[in-house]
Amino acid sequence: MSAPPPDSDRRFVLTLGCPDQIGIVARISTFIAELGGSIVEAGYHSDPVTGWFFTRQAVRASSIPLGVDEFRSRFRDVAMQLGPETDWALSDTGTLKRIVLLVSKEPHCLHDLLGRAAGGELPATIEAVIGNHADLASVVEAHGVKFHHVPFPRDPDERGPAFGRIRELVDSHEPDAVVLARFMQVLPPDLCAHWKGRALNIHHSFLPSFVGAKPYHQAFARGVKLIGATCHYVTPELDAGPILEQDVIRVDHADEVRDFVRQGRDIEKLVLARGLRWHLEDRVLVHGGKTVVFS
Amino acid sequence: MSAPPPDSDRRFVLTLGCPDQIGIVARISTFIAELGGSIVEAGYHSDPVTGWFFTRQAVRASSIPLGVDEFRSRFRDVAMQLGPETDWALSDTGTLKRIVLLVSKEPHCLHDLLGRAAGGELPATIEAVIGNHADLASVVEAHGVKFHHVPFPRDPDERGPAFGRIRELVDSHEPDAVVLARFMQVLPPDLCAHWKGRALNIHHSFLPSFVGAKPYHQAFARGVKLIGATCHYVTPELDAGPILEQDVIRVDHADEVRDFVRQGRDIEKLVLARGLRWHLEDRVLVHGGKTVVFS
Amino acid sequence: MSAPPPDSDRRFVLTLGCPDQIGIVARISTFIAELGGSIVEAGYHSDPVTGWFFTRQAVRASSIPLGVDEFRSRFRDVAMQLGPETDWALSDTGTLKRIVLLVSKEPHCLHDLLGRAAGGELPATIEAVIGNHADLASVVEAHGVKFHHVPFPRDPDERGPAFGRIRELVDSHEPDAVVLARFMQVLPPDLCAHWKGRALNIHHSFLPSFVGAKPYHQAFARGVKLIGATCHYVTPELDAGPILEQDVIRVDHADEVRDFVRQGRDIEKLVLARGLRWHLEDRVLVHGGKTVVFS
Amino acid sequence: MSAPPPDSDRRFVLTLGCPDQIGIVARISTFIAELGGSIVEAGYHSDPVTGWFFTRQAVRASSIPLGVDEFRSRFRDVAMQLGPETDWALSDTGTLKRIVLLVSKEPHCLHDLLGRAAGGELPATIEAVIGNHADLASVVEAHGVKFHHVPFPRDPDERGPAFGRIRELVDSHEPDAVVLARFMQVLPPDLCAHWKGRALNIHHSFLPSFVGAKPYHQAFARGVKLIGATCHYVTPELDAGPILEQDVIRVDHADEVRDFVRQGRDIEKLVLARGLRWHLEDRVLVHGGKTVVFS
Repeated sequence: MSAPPPDSDRRFVLTLGCPDQIGIVARISTFIAELGGSIVEAGYHSDPVTGWFFTRQAVRASSIPLGVDEFRSRFRDVAMQLGPETDWALSDTGTLKRIVLLVSKEPHCLHDLLGRAAGGELPATIEAVIGNHADLASVVEAHGVKFHHVPFPRDPDERGPAFGRIRELVDSHEPDAVVLARFMQVLPPDLCAHWKGRALNIHHSFLPSFVGAKPYHQAFARGVKLIGATCHYVTPELDAGPILEQDVIRVDHADEVRDFVRQGRDIEKLVLARGLRWHLEDRVLVHGGKTVVFS
Repeated sequence: MSAPPPDSDRRFVLTLGCPDQIGIVARISTFIAELGGSIVEAGYHSDPVTGWFFTRQAVRASSIPLGVDEFRSRFRDVAMQLGPETDWALSDTGTLKRIVLLVSKEPHCLHDLLGRAAGGELPATIEAVIGNHADLASVVEAHGVKFHHVPFPRDPDERGPAFGRIRELVDSHEPDAVVLARFMQVLPPDLCAHWKGRALNIHHSFLPSFVGAKPYHQAFARGVKLIGATCHYVTPELDAGPILEQDVIRVDHADEVRDFVRQGRDIEKLVLARGLRWHLEDRVLVHGGKTVVFS
Repeated sequence: MSAPPPDSDRRFVLTLGCPDQIGIVARISTFIAELGGSIVEAGYHSDPVTGWFFTRQAVRASSIPLGVDEFRSRFRDVAMQLGPETDWALSDTGTLKRIVLLVSKEPHCLHDLLGRAAGGELPATIEAVIGNHADLASVVEAHGVKFHHVPFPRDPDERGPAFGRIRELVDSHEPDAVVLARFMQVLPPDLCAHWKGRALNIHHSFLPSFVGAKPYHQAFARGVKLIGATCHYVTPELDAGPILEQDVIRVDHADEVRDFVRQGRDIEKLVLARGLRWHLEDRVLVHGGKTVVFS
Repeated sequence: MSAPPPDSDRRFVLTLGCPDQIGIVARISTFIAELGGSIVEAGYHSDPVTGWFFTRQAVRASSIPLGVDEFRSRFRDVAMQLGPETDWALSDTGTLKRIVLLVSKEPHCLHDLLGRAAGGELPATIEAVIGNHADLASVVEAHGVKFHHVPFPRDPDERGPAFGRIRELVDSHEPDAVVLARFMQVLPPDLCAHWKGRALNIHHSFLPSFVGAKPYHQAFARGVKLIGATCHYVTPELDAGPILEQDVIRVDHADEVRDFVRQGRDIEKLVLARGLRWHLEDRVLVHGGKTVVFS
């Protein structure tokens, strides 16, 4: 069962991106030091191509004599000094994040995430699972999670109301992550925009190879020697969102498409789980269609 | 230095592809057993999609009371019984194979292959290296290998004579493998046809991603989390030939294009060396645009 | 849900080891060809160190006009001609194999195998799960599998009756595989002997490094840069049985022991699942403390 | 050819370890910011087990109006404020580092490093190569590098003078790295002490498995499914020094010891090259027998 960390492990996590300039780290770290904050983990990245600076800092919550709201409020001044484009957030690991899963019939990513949640591996609770088929309802409910069945009409042009219902259900949980766990449906542009930066998909190929449908069939036809999976943020352009994580697994001439499918599941599960964990731990900053991952 | 194996390691290597049918293995293995042949290594593959059968068998040469020519001549009957489409070859590892390398300015694949040849790792001799630039001549000659400089005119339309000269030089060595070791030039269709099944290229991406020029720049722009390399047979369609081997290496947001280039070299060297060794050891059978690799 | 394969995928799987000699393949393949048998997959290995020969052959069941018992009975003569030491078996994939799992409190390998069984990935049914703690009972039962709780006394010297009870429960299912899925208890020698070749363990280190207790703590203390997992057959000597599969995952200085534990789970699950599948598909032959795996 | 970087890529690299305390980053980054320094790359690590803090910061040299000596001299005050145990260094990538290689007969790591140096991949020059055999002299000299032959007497007890000569030769180059590139000789304790933190070895196993002689034979006997290589700092206890890097490669039952040796070379070369590059770029901090690698 997912539960907030013990107080000694509770962190305030600051993520920030801004135009690169002299003295950013000095300002941020001086601000934290003056509050007595103990920085447990820190990542920095200066991108010479975009001229952008990125940082993530995890501060031991118990070392700061402030609540997260007050900490956030005081940090606002520092952020403002770094310029109007500065994009930052401050989260508190003492508050568990919330996940909603969208699924269809393929069970492996769902099973994997339910198992990880049950094992306390995810810093989040799975609030609900929504399926356009009901096949996976029972295992979801056995884990004590609510399952919603939103059937889809055959005709793709008539799916508007179903997506509307999904939006309503998802939003009712105010999720930090909307995970398409082999959902197999293309989200309409309005949902992509509405859940921007929160909707994660797992695509069963090493993108940008084999965009779209039946990537394992495409990979088999081309005769590749490795197959892969890609976890990316959902954007209106299909399979083109910022990539959080990818990995591959070796195949050979003896493997048929069904072997690709079977072996690919293992890599899909791992890649989605890693990408999701990094997202939930605020390790991912997006800029210019690409991600910085402080893993 | 490459040298033929000691007599105890000498093998006759049979490779064969034919329409799948009952009793192929029985026929081949009975033929070999009746000659007293000791099969040291055997690979089989039935492809259910194409209905094609593939095998590679390595027989201890000293266990057969025949020379390779006589062995080959006797096997012809067995092959004919398997049908007119049967495609087979029989080689003798007692005769070292011959390699010609085509290079440009990038040294890493060349260095790597020269080092492997010097270390006795390749079952072949490097007969000559041909470069459209002369930069790499001295290291080639330090290894006691002949270097030919065939300069290319700027205008791609005027390169016919240079390619003609290369063809002449290459063919004078009757090579078993023509290796484009970061040659960076597209072979004209007639050379692709002429060296079909013998010309190997290393492409610095995980094909079919990032076909063509500057794949590391393309990979950087897309924000992938792994970069790769692909060893493939050269065909007229660019970067579309049958794939022998691929591998990848992890990159992250801190890596710039030049880091991709540097790290990519390691995977290019490995992938090319593996693919080339398999080719030289007659481990690769091509059918329908794909490879069977009995590695 | 695991179910026998459709008839077109049903195979008779022959595995055989014997002293290497001329003509083994010829005899076996001629025998199969004379019955009209279509060999779908074949692996061969001659070990020059031990002088032993190994093969695995999968024959399309529908191509043979015999049941498995009659096929087995006829093959006996072939096997006898290969010498008295010949060790062979013939199985029928039309009969699902049976697994019993032994668990303790760690859920991840159990969840993973239950998920794979539910997804039809394993050619076997999970007959029962036995735990020395009851923590995992509910998820087992939610999958429709029987859970037996056999509590262990604190004093290791008084565990004889508990192991006796486990032996009884396990044997009542006549399992093809007894899987120690993070069971965390050392089997007594009589059980190791009784289940020889059928009991698989997952050890959370890259053996032979870090034998015994708390391998992740040992790995952390040594400062290794990769951690691993090993699936091996259980033998009386601790963590010294024949290895079926191993894999590793990268760690770095920022990872604490608890991160090793978390990341290690992913590799434990994969390595156990791969080893178990190979075992169930009769891909593993053991000889001289080592395995031949026709994967 | 290795050459110092262009001025725009020149960096001052600060590495520092000290007892963890509030405000370290603030002090260091404020100091750098006040000089106008632009931090190009920064790594931080707090170790909760040892209570030690580590950082590496790369500052664009052209952004600081001081030479490296003056910068170092001013930083001394900051370091002193962090306590008397503080261990720090400041290097200038404008000055190429120096490497001396120790070799025996195995050529692959030597070839690989010479090739990398020739390709400009290493931020260092290879000053000299010393061999206890003369086999590799010619290739070294073809790269324009001095080769010293220091023959070893058969009797290990009489090698003192040879090691004395090696020490003299090595020290004459004031190297930043003394690389045992498959040197195959155990350094005497006084040399281990003298070159502490500068002598790197490549061991051909995944340590701590298979310490000492003939690790591939040991690995073959145990039947492992992956073989590895380890780059570590040399210490008086054999193969027990702090590990910089490790990696593995898959083997199977068909691989004999000589295949392990051949395939192992590829991973030895890569692991040594990575470890050496990190060492030369001041990415490695050693504490308590383990490394922090800001890679």
